[in-house]
Amino acid sequence: MTDAHTLIDTHREKFLEELKDYLSIPSISTLSEHNADTQRAAAWTAAQLRAAGMTRVEIMPTPKHPVVYAEWLGAPGKPTVLIYGHYDVQPAELEAGWLSDPFKPEVREDNLYARGASDDKGQVYVNIKAVQMLMQANGTLPLNVKFLIEGEEEIGSPNLDPFITANKELLRADVVVVSDTAIQSPDQPSIVYGLRGLVYLELEVRGPKQDLHSGGFGGTVHNPAQALCEIIAALHHPDGSVAVDGFYDKVRPIDEKERTAMAKTDVSDAEWKRLTGAPQSWGEAQYTLRERVGARPTLEVNGIWGGFTGEGSKTVLPAKATAKISCRLVPDQDPYEIEALIRAQVAKLAPPTITWEVRALNHGHCALVPIDSLAMECAVAAYERGFGARPLFLREGGSIPVVATFAQTYQVPVLLVGYGLPDDGAHGPNEKFNLECLYRGIHTAAALLEELGKRSPDSLRVL
Amino acid sequence: MTDAHTLIDTHREKFLEELKDYLSIPSISTLSEHNADTQRAAAWTAAQLRAAGMTRVEIMPTPKHPVVYAEWLGAPGKPTVLIYGHYDVQPAELEAGWLSDPFKPEVREDNLYARGASDDKGQVYVNIKAVQMLMQANGTLPLNVKFLIEGEEEIGSPNLDPFITANKELLRADVVVVSDTAIQSPDQPSIVYGLRGLVYLELEVRGPKQDLHSGGFGGTVHNPAQALCEIIAALHHPDGSVAVDGFYDKVRPIDEKERTAMAKTDVSDAEWKRLTGAPQSWGEAQYTLRERVGARPTLEVNGIWGGFTGEGSKTVLPAKATAKISCRLVPDQDPYEIEALIRAQVAKLAPPTITWEVRALNHGHCALVPIDSLAMECAVAAYERGFGARPLFLREGGSIPVVATFAQTYQVPVLLVGYGLPDDGAHGPNEKFNLECLYRGIHTAAALLEELGKRSPDSLRVL
Repeated sequence: MTDAHTLIDTHREKFLEELKDYLSIPSISTLSEHNADTQRAAAWTAAQLRAAGMTRVEIMPTPKHPVVYAEWLGAPGKPTVLIYGHYDVQPAELEAGWLSDPFKPEVREDNLYARGASDDKGQVYVNIKAVQMLMQANGTLPLNVKFLIEGEEEIGSPNLDPFITANKELLRADVVVVSDTAIQSPDQPSIVYGLRGLVYLELEVRGPKQDLHSGGFGGTVHNPAQALCEIIAALHHPDGSVAVDGFYDKVRPIDEKERTAMAKTDVSDAEWKRLTGAPQSWGEAQYTLRERVGARPTLEVNGIWGGFTGEGSKTVLPAKATAKISCRLVPDQDPYEIEALIRAQVAKLAPPTITWEVRALNHGHCALVPIDSLAMECAVAAYERGFGARPLFLREGGSIPVVATFAQTYQVPVLLVGYGLPDDGAHGPNEKFNLECLYRGIHTAAALLEELGKRSPDSLRVL
Repeated sequence: MTDAHTLIDTHREKFLEELKDYLSIPSISTLSEHNADTQRAAAWTAAQLRAAGMTRVEIMPTPKHPVVYAEWLGAPGKPTVLIYGHYDVQPAELEAGWLSDPFKPEVREDNLYARGASDDKGQVYVNIKAVQMLMQANGTLPLNVKFLIEGEEEIGSPNLDPFITANKELLRADVVVVSDTAIQSPDQPSIVYGLRGLVYLELEVRGPKQDLHSGGFGGTVHNPAQALCEIIAALHHPDGSVAVDGFYDKVRPIDEKERTAMAKTDVSDAEWKRLTGAPQSWGEAQYTLRERVGARPTLEVNGIWGGFTGEGSKTVLPAKATAKISCRLVPDQDPYEIEALIRAQVAKLAPPTITWEVRALNHGHCALVPIDSLAMECAVAAYERGFGARPLFLREGGSIPVVATFAQTYQVPVLLVGYGLPDDGAHGPNEKFNLECLYRGIHTAAALLEELGKRSPDSLRVL
C-alpha cells in the first residue's frame, strides 16, 4: 500500500458525507423541471474535480445538459486515461416503494440508499477521490488524466456522440475507463466486456376523437387500450422470443467458448428469485438466465397508460392508449434497423379500426470489448489489489452506448471498471451503493491509475 | 298550452343561469377529495326543491353520499309519481380535451358545456323546473310528486338499493320517472325501454417485488405490463365477441319483432363516424350497430396503467400493471355471475410467471321496461306535446341499475323519460346539454305530470 491507500482509509467518513451531498441533488435528466438540478450536479462535479487537483475544469454546454470536462496533463511521456461517468440519474417516485426519500441519502446497514448511489454518482465519486488521494499523497499523478462526466446517460446520451466528434482531440486518450457497471459481489469482482444496445420507442394507439361513454359506444368502437394490448401481446412468441420479423437476423450466435465461460457465472434460480421476488423465471428457455440477460436481445414494456386511472370507476372508452417499449440489443443488431423492423411489425399487426404512431426516443449501439489486452491486465491487477480477488469476465444486460463510440472513435481499449452490485436497485426503488464497494472501489480506482502509469502509452493502446 | 307552459317560455334566461350555477359544483362522486362538493350539490338540489313548492325536503345520509328526498302530497286520490335523478357527476380532466373548464359552464352555439350538463344535473333540473312552473301557474300540482335525487349513480349506486329497501313506504309510487337517458335528436324524441347492466372490475398483475432495471433483468422476468396485455388481448375473440367462457350463456336472444323495430333506429356508418371520429366500426359483425350497443353485452378496458408514464425514457421493468375493465350486460346476465366467470377466465389465462388479483368495484342489473302500458302512453303524449313528434322506442347501451330495483320493488311502470342527445359527450370531454332539449324538456316534464294526473292511480300501475 502506498501513502494514497493509507489516506483513503483515513478519509472514510468524509467520503460518505461528501457523497451524500452529491446524491441529494435530484439531477433527473429526463424531467425538464429538474434542469436546474442537473446544472447544480454539473457544478458540484466540477468543484470536486478542481479540489482533486485537475488543472483545467470546464462545464461545457450541449443542446441539453452540460458535459463536465477536466484534465491534469502533468506527466509527459506517460499514458493518458480518459475516465467516463455521468452525473444524471433516473426518475424516482417515493410511491414506487422507497423506504426513504430518494434524494435524502440514508445509511442502513452497510449500504447508502439514494437515487444515483450506484448509477452513477457513487462510481463517478470513486474515481474523483482516487485521483485526489493520489495527488494528496504524492503531489503528482502516475499518468495523465482526463474526465468526461456527462448529464444525459439516462436519456440515451443524445448529445454525447456529437460532443465527442467535436472534441475528438481534447478527449483523446490511450485507454478509456468507464465506471457505470456492477461486479458480482464485494468479494468477487468482475469486469463487463459486453454491453447491450438500446432502442426506446413510444407506441400510441388512437381510436375515437375523444373519450366516449362505454355504455353508449362500447361494442362498436375498437377500444384503443384493448387494441394496444393486442399489439403488445403479439410482439412476443409464447416461448418468450420477440415476435418482430427479422429481429434476430443479425444476432451474433454465442460461441461454445463463451457459453462455457458464461455458464460459470450463471445465476441460480434461487438467487434469481431472491433478486427479483417474481414467482417464476420467464424467457427463452434454451438460453441460461445469464445468457438471456447478457447475450440475447429483448423487448420490454417500460410503461403503459390510457383511459381513467384514478380512484374508483369511470365507464369511459378511452380515445387513446400509449406504451413505452424498449429493446436491448446485442452484436450485430443496429438500433435504427430494429426501430424500422418494429414499425413494420406494428403496421402488420395494427387493424384498420385504429390509427397508431411510433415515436423513437433514443438509440444506442451495443459493444463487445476484447478481454486479452494489456490495459485489461491492469484492470485485473487493480481489482486484485482493491477487492482481494481475481475478477471474472461478464456480459451484462444494460446499455452504455458511449462504450461503442469510444471504441470506434479512438480504437483504444475501453475498460468497464465498475463498482456497483447486481441488487443495487438501479432504476428501481431503494437504489443503494454498498459501502464496502465505495471504499474498495476508491482503492481499486487508484490502483488502476498506478498500474496503467507503469506501462507505455503505445503498449496500452493495443487492442 | 296552460299557464305553466307560458311561464316556462318566459323563464328561459333564468333557467340557464340557475343551471350554470348547479353545474359549477364539481360533485364528482368517485373522488373522495370532492366529498364537500357532493354535499354542496345535495344542498343546492334540496334548496331548489323547496323553491319548487315541495312541502317536505330532506337530505338523507347514506354510508357515502346523501340522497335528496322531497315530496308534495297535496292531491289525495290522484296518482303519485316518483322522479329519480342524480346530482353526482363523472370525473373531468381538462387535459382530456375540454375546450372550456368542465366546471365553468359555457354556452357555445345552442349548447351549454359543462360536466354533468346532460348526465344528469341538466335532466334533474328539467324536472324540478317543470314542477315549479306548474305550481306557480296553478298553485297546486296535478298529482302527488316525490323526488329521489341520489349522489352515487356514477359509482354504481352502492348505497341506493339498501336505501330504497329501508325507505320502501316513503318512496312508494304508482309510476316512476327516470330522467337520465338520451333522445335521438331535438326533433325526434325517443324513449329507452332497455338498459344494460354493469360489472366493473380492476385487474392487477404483479411480477417482481419492485421495479427492476430492464437491462439487468429483462428477458428473464415476465414483464407484468406485457402479461396484463396478454390477458386483456385474450378476453376477446377476433370476431369482437367476448372470450370469457360462459359469458353469453344467459343472454336472451333478440326476437325478430325487436330486430325489425331496432333496424328502424339503426345508426348509419356515416353517423357513427361523425359521433365517434374513429376510423372504422368494430365488434360483432352479425349484429347491427344499434343491436351491439343496445342488446349485446360488452367488455371494455376503461383504463390501464403501469411502469413509467412520465416524459422521456426510463428503462424500467415494472413491478405491476393494472387495468379497469367493465362489462355491459343484457337480460338475463347477472353481474355477480359474470364477475365470477371473468375471475375464472383470468385464472385460466394467467401464467405461473406472475400473480394477479381481480377487485370488484360495482355491479348493476339490466332492465327491460314494457312499452305498452297506460303510463307509457302518457310519456308518449308528453313528448308529442313537448317536442312536437311521436317518440321512438330504443334499447340503450348505458346502465341505470336503479331501474331494475324500482321495477322489482314496486312492480309499477318505470318510464325512462330522458332529455339528453347521443353526442352529448357524457363521461367524455366537452359534455353538453342542448338548450332546445332543456326548454322542450321542461315542457315535456310538465306535460307528463299533467298527463299522468288525468289517470287513476290503479290504471297507471298496470304493467
